[in-house]
Amino acid sequence: MNALLRAVSLGVVLLAFGTPVMAQTSSDDPIAVIQRSAEDWNRGDISAFMQSYEDSPSTTFVGTEVARGTEEVLQRYRRTYPDSARMGKTTFSDLEARPLNADLAIVIGRYSLERKPEFGGNRAGIFTLVMRKTPAGWRIIHDHTSTTN
Amino acid sequence: MNALLRAVSLGVVLLAFGTPVMAQTSSDDPIAVIQRSAEDWNRGDISAFMQSYEDSPSTTFVGTEVARGTEEVLQRYRRTYPDSARMGKTTFSDLEARPLNADLAIVIGRYSLERKPEFGGNRAGIFTLVMRKTPAGWRIIHDHTSTTN
Repeated sequence: MNALLRAVSLGVVLLAFGTPVMAQTSSDDPIAVIQRSAEDWNRGDISAFMQSYEDSPSTTFVGTEVARGTEEVLQRYRRTYPDSARMGKTTFSDLEARPLNADLAIVIGRYSLERKPEFGGNRAGIFTLVMRKTPAGWRIIHDHTSTTN
Repeated sequence: MNALLRAVSLGVVLLAFGTPVMAQTSSDDPIAVIQRSAEDWNRGDISAFMQSYEDSPSTTFVGTEVARGTEEVLQRYRRTYPDSARMGKTTFSDLEARPLNADLAIVIGRYSLERKPEFGGNRAGIFTLVMRKTPAGWRIIHDHTSTTN
């Protein structure tokens, strides 16, 4: 395909789908979605952080209890981390994705939360995320997070 | 399809695949596989218990560390539970399966381990299993287990 034809094809794709193709690049990588959610967390923006979860009543979060549905997962976060001091600053590490098929993947990783002692102190943990590729990009459909400290 | 044709078709299926269809009934339910693994555990038979995992270098177990490959998962169990006294008796509860597609499912549940104090005492926890339907039946391809007590 020559350069002109490629450019025209891209234009057709942009017109056909409405959304610029480049805007979805980072959503094509499940790990990029998770890394971005850490940045959202560290700005104290739980609503943006929650965008990494599929907005669905089927979305589940396993901590010591099971939260069912994105709304309940959100409420759990708001209850446990009511303000930015309690949210602290998180760092995700050892992130790895295992594709199960074209639109499902398991992502495992660790988190390390830095927080002043009066707001709960430091925390560390490990998580398993089952992620699904949706039209909006990779989203968490199940989260199992456990503390290791 | 009339009854004769159905019977003939079943015969062809049996001949074609070699394995009687009925023999796989219990393996058709991921929860049945997990319940059977609890019975294996309670007989002190870790080898039989391990049959619930897919025998693969990709099989992963997340506790406080990540074990990779069925062999490493087995070694972790043997190290943590070296004999039937330390294995204790486990009860699985609140088991629920969420199908992701025809051959992938998330199973969540709780375990309660009864054990004499001198062998480690009681334990309780919660787990997420990602299971895949293999020719041999549903098998765990990823296990995240965390203690809740």
